[in-house]
Order: sequence, then C-alpha cells, then structure tokens
Amino acid sequence: MKILRPPALGASARIHVVATSGPVPRDRVEAGLARLRTLLPGTYTFAPNLWERDGFLAGDDASRLRALQDALADPSIDAILCARGGYGATRILPTLDPKRLRAAPKLLLGFSDFSAVLAWALERAGVASVHGPVVAQLATLHDDDADHLIALLRGEDPPAIAAEEGAVLRGGRVAGRLVAANLEVLRALVGTAAFPSLDGAILALEETSERPYRIDRALTQLLTSGSLRGVRGVAVGQLTACEEPADGNPDAPSAHAVFLERLGALGVPVVTGFPFGHHPQRNLALPVGALAELVADDGALYFLEPAAAARGPN
Amino acid sequence: MKILRPPALGASARIHVVATSGPVPRDRVEAGLARLRTLLPGTYTFAPNLWERDGFLAGDDASRLRALQDALADPSIDAILCARGGYGATRILPTLDPKRLRAAPKLLLGFSDFSAVLAWALERAGVASVHGPVVAQLATLHDDDADHLIALLRGEDPPAIAAEEGAVLRGGRVAGRLVAANLEVLRALVGTAAFPSLDGAILALEETSERPYRIDRALTQLLTSGSLRGVRGVAVGQLTACEEPADGNPDAPSAHAVFLERLGALGVPVVTGFPFGHHPQRNLALPVGALAELVADDGALYFLEPAAAARGPN
Repeated sequence: MKILRPPALGASARIHVVATSGPVPRDRVEAGLARLRTLLPGTYTFAPNLWERDGFLAGDDASRLRALQDALADPSIDAILCARGGYGATRILPTLDPKRLRAAPKLLLGFSDFSAVLAWALERAGVASVHGPVVAQLATLHDDDADHLIALLRGEDPPAIAAEEGAVLRGGRVAGRLVAANLEVLRALVGTAAFPSLDGAILALEETSERPYRIDRALTQLLTSGSLRGVRGVAVGQLTACEEPADGNPDAPSAHAVFLERLGALGVPVVTGFPFGHHPQRNLALPVGALAELVADDGALYFLEPAAAARGPN
Repeated sequence: MKILRPPALGASARIHVVATSGPVPRDRVEAGLARLRTLLPGTYTFAPNLWERDGFLAGDDASRLRALQDALADPSIDAILCARGGYGATRILPTLDPKRLRAAPKLLLGFSDFSAVLAWALERAGVASVHGPVVAQLATLHDDDADHLIALLRGEDPPAIAAEEGAVLRGGRVAGRLVAANLEVLRALVGTAAFPSLDGAILALEETSERPYRIDRALTQLLTSGSLRGVRGVAVGQLTACEEPADGNPDAPSAHAVFLERLGALGVPVVTGFPFGHHPQRNLALPVGALAELVADDGALYFLEPAAAARGPN
C-alpha cells in the first residue's frame, strides 16, 4: 500500500482534539491548548468525550470510538491531536474503520498510548502521521521542540535530530520508513491487525514507567514473535522513570542496558538517547511513515521527507 | 498432536529442581525443600545454576538454557520442579528442543513465569504438566493444597476444586483440555511458537502485581489477536496485589471487574475466585493438558483425567 501523506496545515486550519485513552487532566490540557493557539492559530474543536471519565478511560468504548471515527470522517478537520495518553486505544482499534482516513488523509499527532493509533493509521490506512507531544505535554515543552513540532505540521522539511548522552550499539548508515511507538504499546499490538509492518523500517522506541525486566519481556516478545524481522535500524528515545525501584533488585541492569543487550540480536545499527518521549520538556516530533536515515556513527536521525504534503496553490 | 501424560511419581522418584527465571531466594527455597522431602521422599538433585544471580536472572541465558535442556533430556529424572518464578523463561524458550521431552515425557511443575515452560511443553512437545506451587512457595502452603499437589504428582484423580468468594459471569457447563497460565506470561507468548492452542480449551488464569489497566491491556491483546478463539470456558484464580495503588486512579475498576468485563466478550462460562495463584498459602495444583469440566453454576472445576499416567506394574 502506497503511504499517503496528509496535507500540511495552512494558516486557518481546523484542529480537533480527541481523547482515545485515559481521562484527560483539564488543567494541563487547557494550559497546553493556550500555548498551542499562539503557536498554531486556527479553529479548535473538541471531541464530545474530551472531559469524560469512566474508570481509567476517557469515556466508555462507544463514546471514544464514535468520537474518533467521526473525527476521521469529517472532511472539515485538518488535524487530529491527542489530548493525553494513558491506556485505552487498543480497546477500540479493532472496530475503527480505516477507509475514510485513507480516502481523505488528515494529520494525526500524539504518542504513548496514541502510538497505537498512529501504527493503525500506517498499517491499516497507509497514512503517515506525527509522533509527538500530546496536548497535555505542550505547556511544559521546550521552545525548540515546540518549533520543531509546528514545522512538521506545516509541512516543512524537519531538521535532523541528534542523540544526547546516548550510546551507539552498532555503527552504520541505514535508510527506511520511520515507525515510532511506545515500546509497551507496540508490544500490545503483536498478533493484531494494527501491528505495523517493520520490514525495511527504521524503528523509533521510547518507554516510561516500566522496570528493566518488563522492558526485557517486551523486547523479547517482539524479537521472539518475529515482529522485528527486517528492521534496518533502531533509534531509542527517552526511558523515563524506568529505573528499578528502591525496594527492587539492586543487581538489575538499567533499562538502557536492557535495550542494548536485547537489540544487539538484530545485528543492525542501534542508537540510544534521542530526545523524544515522556520527558516533560523534551519530545521532538517524528514523521511516522516518512523515509528517514539513521547515521549511527554521528548519533543522528535524518528525515528524507516531511511528515505532511505541501499544500498546492489552490 | 496427541497429548502425552508423563508417568506418575513412584516411591523412589528422582526430583530435579531448576531455576529458569529470576534469582532464587535461598532461605525460602530451602524451607520449601525441607517440607517437600517429607511429603515426597525421593532423590533430589539441583540445576547447576540454581543459586546463580545475573541481574534479574538466575544465571545467564546459556546456563539457564543448558540446565533445563539437560534436565529434559536426562532419562533418570522423573520430575522437574521450578524453584521460583520472576522473569526469564521466555528468553530461552526459542532455543529449547522439545523432541527429547516428547520422546520421554517427565512431570513439569511450576507456575507464574514457569507457566511459559508449561505452555511450551504442551504446544511444542505435546506433554501434559502440573500448574502448581514453585518450591519457594512450598514452606507456607496450606496443608490441603500440599496434599492436593502430592496426589496429582502421584497420578491420583484430582478432586474438583471450588471457587471461593468469586463470581459467575456466565453459567453453563463446558468441557475441554485445561490450559493454565499467568495472564501476563501467556500474553508474552502471543505471536511466538510457544503460545498454546486454546481452541476447545478451558483456560485457567491468575495474576499478581499488575494494575487493573495493565490487566485490561493484556486481556485486550489476547482478545484482539484472536488468541482466545475457541476457548470454551475460563476459570480465574487469584488476583494477588492487583489493586490500584493508593496514589493511583481512585475511579479505576478492580482487577476482578476488568476480568469480568473483558472476558464477557467471549460469550462462554467464566468463573472467578478459584484458589490458585500467588497467595502464599493457597495454590491448588492443576493438571495442564488434561480434560477438565467447568460447571459454572456450581463454581466448580472438575478434572476428568489425572495429570500423570498411572505407573504400570513393570
């Protein structure tokens, strides 16, 4: 399936905020929206379930599903932004219809639990998207990262990103289509129709609040199930709050060491320490489905295509 | 593949203790062994890596794999008992050879992380086993549960087990081959060659130390991936320490409620509250691979076959 790039956002875009996963923290999301309106003027609309709470979900499956499906099908919406992650997207993916997104691609933005929706969009609808901040993260985001995000949404060529304090497990220079996801969320898609094809891909992974042995279990499942077959390179982002707890196993390796050990089996370039993920200030947006090049020896990830298609003169 | 039952343990069995997963707590395992020797006299031997520690593993993959492979292949060993769970079995399953176990079945006993090995034995070698206490749990196990375990290992017909303080989601009476596993461990096998076929099975599941939303994610993956297709009934055991933490989401449903909600989609009898799992005193042993009958209205699970084959006169 040819990957379609949604149109870049113009000066008067309609931006729609959805809540597909956990209950949305009103203060953080409103603070994020206030900043976003100055960075990205336009018309803002909101999913009917945005402030709903149903246990650990932002409303029941029917309301989260209908809100997302309606947004995907609405031709007046230019971009769909995720308010926050948490958990819940995988409950509704099986009944989400990819045909309307395929027929009229629009920009999807989010990460963490929403990376399941981005994977679904790429695999089921063949539509590129942006792995980047949720609205709840926008108030605290570093200015540079906010500028980087807006550039991607505007369809500009994104500048390369560089690893910080990372490690190069294996050098080399590889190109492929970029797929970015939260590790545990990608793992939760194994065996389902939304698992993105990674054959020939550059894989970008981040994680939060998982102990090292759990990261090992997730990576082991991805490896053992053959889900990583054909991956050409891996860019590891932030591993936020993945330390072993104080009352845990003092001999446990770090989450970082687990990534290096497990991914070594792939025999492809792996670079850690990229500034994307759950850090409150740092989450550089990534164009999912776009061609990218990982230059391991430089600790750099280049984007060979923009996330969104340039808007024509009409 | 026809399911083979290993020979029951006789009066002078050789019992071999392995450590396939996390580092083994010496005091608890020695206390468990002391009790076991009185309940089950015989010759006890130990895997070379039993007391090894390598981070969160009981020795590196090579030593854990070799120790288990050697035990499976050793014709003088009658039963292989798991010392403790933790994490690590799924790292070595892909390179474990099922042919020797198939050629000379022997009793495997354990649960938690070791339920991955039991699933592998059933799926790859077609050999029945016992889902029951690890050695580290034996010192504190209730007398009745210890007697029940010994009866299973001796090849006696196991008495039915009854749900305690549980719920019946859907009534009915169903029979099928019993597959028992830890939920998170079963989930970790999705997409791998060790995932047990559940078509026509009665599935027994237990969990420990997972928050409700994580249980939801695991069950959702099992459902969405089609892994539970053909399951005829589900017996839910203990959900130990699966409460939402004090600083968590006060509106979150209980782990029990999540099981009932997610498993409702199967449309088959589901009974919760069976006394097997991670409770220090209660873990009734279950014959994996044996025919069982779930009588939901009575909250009872009957075993139509013993776990082990009766020993012939020779």
